[in-house]
Amino acid sequence: MGRISPVSAAPTLRIAEIFGPTIQGEGVLIGEPTVFVRAGGCDYRCVWCDTLHAVESRFRDEWAPLSTEAVWAEVVALSGGRALTVSLSGGNPAIQPFGPLIARGRAEGYRFALETQGSLARPWFAELSTLVLSPKPPSSRMETDWSALDDCLKAAGAGPRVVLKFIVFDQADYEYARDAAARYPRLPVYLQPGNHTPPPPEAEDAPIDIDGLMERMRWLVDRVIEDRWFEAHVLPQLHVLIWGNRRGV
Amino acid sequence: MGRISPVSAAPTLRIAEIFGPTIQGEGVLIGEPTVFVRAGGCDYRCVWCDTLHAVESRFRDEWAPLSTEAVWAEVVALSGGRALTVSLSGGNPAIQPFGPLIARGRAEGYRFALETQGSLARPWFAELSTLVLSPKPPSSRMETDWSALDDCLKAAGAGPRVVLKFIVFDQADYEYARDAAARYPRLPVYLQPGNHTPPPPEAEDAPIDIDGLMERMRWLVDRVIEDRWFEAHVLPQLHVLIWGNRRGV
Repeated sequence: MGRISPVSAAPTLRIAEIFGPTIQGEGVLIGEPTVFVRAGGCDYRCVWCDTLHAVESRFRDEWAPLSTEAVWAEVVALSGGRALTVSLSGGNPAIQPFGPLIARGRAEGYRFALETQGSLARPWFAELSTLVLSPKPPSSRMETDWSALDDCLKAAGAGPRVVLKFIVFDQADYEYARDAAARYPRLPVYLQPGNHTPPPPEAEDAPIDIDGLMERMRWLVDRVIEDRWFEAHVLPQLHVLIWGNRRGV
Repeated sequence: MGRISPVSAAPTLRIAEIFGPTIQGEGVLIGEPTVFVRAGGCDYRCVWCDTLHAVESRFRDEWAPLSTEAVWAEVVALSGGRALTVSLSGGNPAIQPFGPLIARGRAEGYRFALETQGSLARPWFAELSTLVLSPKPPSSRMETDWSALDDCLKAAGAGPRVVLKFIVFDQADYEYARDAAARYPRLPVYLQPGNHTPPPPEAEDAPIDIDGLMERMRWLVDRVIEDRWFEAHVLPQLHVLIWGNRRGV
């Protein structure tokens, strides 16, 4: 985050990292040039979390308290002032007051995507271009609060495109995804094989089992095709295939 | 194509292969369960063509002359009668009279996507869900007929979603893509690194240089980001990463 220095007045957002532009590696926006704003802090503790450096409290000191203007200035610097998609991720970015940043960026033609597990609804979800709701399957050891997820949909209203994304490690996760998708028959579904070799949070780079990931990808495609679940998309984490577990790409 | 047998009466379509469902590996529909209908025959001879078995005349005897009904019956059998996306590819599928197949399938809720270099416009383009126009860059050694491409857009009208897809092998290809995209500023753009180890047409399977493909992918992402070409998407051939050069997946 080179150019950013913590702002002591009005520290409104806790930011683990801002990087890009690089292509989005996952889900509905895959392949699209994107600047990533990763919020620090999460109300979940998924056992296989691949961004613990933005989740666990012991990394809290590394999350810069930044004003909306400071975050916006960094997005503008990284994108050279040319409008693009900004992905708000985390951690759970819904914890933080991103509304003013979205308003600021939209006025300049930027689009905002946000990915969240759907545990906290915010009125400013309606101002997003894309809302990715990614409820966590049993392998995460988390419990889904379905009424909170419903609230997220209500908050989004007719504003953004809303899609469901599911991380799938095993058959139980797959069945969870099917059941969850059945609750929201009008939402597009994206399935993603889980990364069983997530980077340890201290590592800037870490080895990755590409063959194992591709094996899981083939398994997931087979399941979807076997069940004729033709409404589902199946996509890997492209950035992991291209750059491995390296951060900031 | 197991169940298909050539129909001698009314042989309206020349089909190299029908396979699936499997996920679409390229472009705007990446990750989407799809049945592929690959037409035999092409008016182009791209030097790096990765589907020569559907292009070169010496394979002509392997292309089954099938009625629309026979092709439709196979699509229904493969999809278990559940509507999904059917991708018409080739060769150049625009050569063949696919209009009646599209009308037949649409009546049952199926969606049709077609990918073509844009050398031949057909009135039934308007009935597609997705039209992928993929004019060929200099490395192909082909010449683009821009007025033919314009005609394809006119034929599509307001019917399908139309996107541009460019195969990029080198800097000259990249510049071609930029110039071509500038002609059609409202069309979404998908860039795809070329496969420099295409399968020989006789091989059902062939080795593939994944590291080389990923290297080309990184190069292409770097070019796009450097130029702040944020309207472009960059995607690899996912099926090649997952299954290698194997056919029918």
